[in-house]
Amino acid sequence: MGDLFDKVHGFDRAKEAIAAGVYPYFRALSDTEGAVAMFEGKEVVMIGSNNYLGLTTDPRVRKAAIDAVDRYGTSVTGSRFLNGTLELHLELDRRLAAYVGKEAALVFSTGYQTNVGTITAILSKSDYVIIDKDDHASIVDACMMSRAEMKRFLHNDISSLERVLADLPPEAGKLVVVDGVYSMGGDIAPLPEVVEICKRYGARIMVDDAHGIGVTGMGRGTAHHFGLTDQVDLIMGTFSKSFASIGGFIAGDKDVIHYIQHNARSLIFSAALPAPAAAAALAALDIMESEPQLVQTMWDNAEYMRAGFNRIGYNTGKSNTPIIPVMIGDDFGTVMAWHALIAEGVYTNPVVPPGVPPKKSLLRTSYMATHTHEHLDRALKAFEVVGERLDLLSKGREKVAAI
Amino acid sequence: MGDLFDKVHGFDRAKEAIAAGVYPYFRALSDTEGAVAMFEGKEVVMIGSNNYLGLTTDPRVRKAAIDAVDRYGTSVTGSRFLNGTLELHLELDRRLAAYVGKEAALVFSTGYQTNVGTITAILSKSDYVIIDKDDHASIVDACMMSRAEMKRFLHNDISSLERVLADLPPEAGKLVVVDGVYSMGGDIAPLPEVVEICKRYGARIMVDDAHGIGVTGMGRGTAHHFGLTDQVDLIMGTFSKSFASIGGFIAGDKDVIHYIQHNARSLIFSAALPAPAAAAALAALDIMESEPQLVQTMWDNAEYMRAGFNRIGYNTGKSNTPIIPVMIGDDFGTVMAWHALIAEGVYTNPVVPPGVPPKKSLLRTSYMATHTHEHLDRALKAFEVVGERLDLLSKGREKVAAI
Repeated sequence: MGDLFDKVHGFDRAKEAIAAGVYPYFRALSDTEGAVAMFEGKEVVMIGSNNYLGLTTDPRVRKAAIDAVDRYGTSVTGSRFLNGTLELHLELDRRLAAYVGKEAALVFSTGYQTNVGTITAILSKSDYVIIDKDDHASIVDACMMSRAEMKRFLHNDISSLERVLADLPPEAGKLVVVDGVYSMGGDIAPLPEVVEICKRYGARIMVDDAHGIGVTGMGRGTAHHFGLTDQVDLIMGTFSKSFASIGGFIAGDKDVIHYIQHNARSLIFSAALPAPAAAAALAALDIMESEPQLVQTMWDNAEYMRAGFNRIGYNTGKSNTPIIPVMIGDDFGTVMAWHALIAEGVYTNPVVPPGVPPKKSLLRTSYMATHTHEHLDRALKAFEVVGERLDLLSKGREKVAAI
Repeated sequence: MGDLFDKVHGFDRAKEAIAAGVYPYFRALSDTEGAVAMFEGKEVVMIGSNNYLGLTTDPRVRKAAIDAVDRYGTSVTGSRFLNGTLELHLELDRRLAAYVGKEAALVFSTGYQTNVGTITAILSKSDYVIIDKDDHASIVDACMMSRAEMKRFLHNDISSLERVLADLPPEAGKLVVVDGVYSMGGDIAPLPEVVEICKRYGARIMVDDAHGIGVTGMGRGTAHHFGLTDQVDLIMGTFSKSFASIGGFIAGDKDVIHYIQHNARSLIFSAALPAPAAAAALAALDIMESEPQLVQTMWDNAEYMRAGFNRIGYNTGKSNTPIIPVMIGDDFGTVMAWHALIAEGVYTNPVVPPGVPPKKSLLRTSYMATHTHEHLDRALKAFEVVGERLDLLSKGREKVAAI
């Protein structure tokens, strides 16, 4: 008789890495996670977070969360559909819509559930959903849950997108989903070309701007950056990056959001965001609106690091945002470099297959408005020391030519 | 050319209800949501939440959340897989495992994502997943996302479960998923019979105990209640009910949880629970462990209400938990009753098709440890007044016979 759990007992990959002392995942940070964090007893410069504006430790955001605990308690214990909607959620809906320049927005409890709920609400079995090969995993999961047929095009490759669209039945409903900013490569979607092609083929467009809102378009996101807010049908964002919280939202025309609100199962059948999380996101939004210079500081820090990496001899791929991948190539070498950087006091994220294609392993780094040049210089120094010790810089140079 | 958004413009159901002034959904509560809440300017006794132990406003839970904001900030900005694990998450994993009596547990950011991540990690295309017709929507969504074949059996009907299992290939992997406590009917799964049948057919068993943990088994859940903790493979719980927070967890054997941790995409590709939410759940768990009498007080309140409803002449279905549905039948009548109860100062949840079968509309009510007899008497008085005014009590009595 077959047993579902047979697969469990043959799963040794992670256990072997743990035994070898080279397992980099699910390892705990302690204390505040700001520009500097504590990792297993060691102080590290944090260049492995999504805290782009550094607001998770901002006193105003903290105070908003604490005030919300005092006023509302720690949970709403129900879905927004029933007893879980607070006026705070409605205010956040309205304010986010205004910030990204759409008629309406709708707050979900996570970014993952925003994508899953939106895509499954909009798509039916006879529809097609067309996604970039590097789109976030939550989009792929959403497509799997929907009954629509999923097609993929090569990353940021407009002719590949056009080939896919040209092959589909003209009368079928079509949704093209791209990330605004790609979370690993740090490159931006070519939205003007995507919009032009989608209009030509009658496809609706959704932009997952989880890493764009707060970052691109002076904070207002990738559609705003390109002046295409009106041309994109749906804009999605999350609160677990620039917004210093957890949760997500979808923004679009009023009728479309109304439809999603009544058909997104991950909204209707899941508890709403607790008041302190909603209040933190709202306070972060206040700051994003009133202090756009924070966004500029983050970009300045990112350009400082990009120049530094390239000067040392690292390849930073096609990134043109505050997400800067440092290309290593070999997966074991990537994990070794991650370890050596921790020892030198720098926290990065190692990304190995299946997160990236074979031999394309990288260290993902990303920058905050609250990094000082002292933090950034410490990080660059550590990368230089580790690069020389592990002979990554020549490999890096080889790879510059190869990519 | 087909347009995905055509469906949006034909969607008038909710708009018509709003225009008619009878739309009960997505309406905001303000201020604290405890035993009493504020709804559109009116004070209401809250019998429409999942705050079973009343801990969302407990000073100790609030303090834990506030201390966590002070210590860690408002967001971890990353997945548990990478930069989003705090020692706090690991402590919560360990403490939950001990509380439900399993080797290991794993905390996700929502209950919805716990079900989606667990079920898609465990199941492959050639497997079968067998679910109760009344299982929570997140389980259905998880089955849709997995490639496994989904089969449903009649609610709490053991012979229906057996018929389904008997029809499946003996060598196929099988997972049976039941709710411990059904969220609308308030009835308990017949776990002893479910376990017996599943063992006979070589099926693994998962219990979604979102409404059981904190409620049944003196708080330790439905498997504990039946003395079957070791016989059930996976126990799932959420933090948005008794735990006064948001999030969820899956508990089971160490190797199974290790496998889920490395294969659950909704865990790996979604930001981890912010520290204040994790700290609130941990503080609630402390209280659940140290004050099991809270659970008893909630049960006493529920029995008081069940007796009260039945005395007045309402049908409360098959409920034997603190979730007590008040059967109304007609959907328009249910929404009218909800309105009238609000006017009388009582907040309930109206549940109409497709949430229930046609002509089985109900008002879902549920009880907390922090309700006083004064609150409960106010609620019963309101139900009596509204029942007489809308002629629900005779209908109720008819339905007692009919069900």
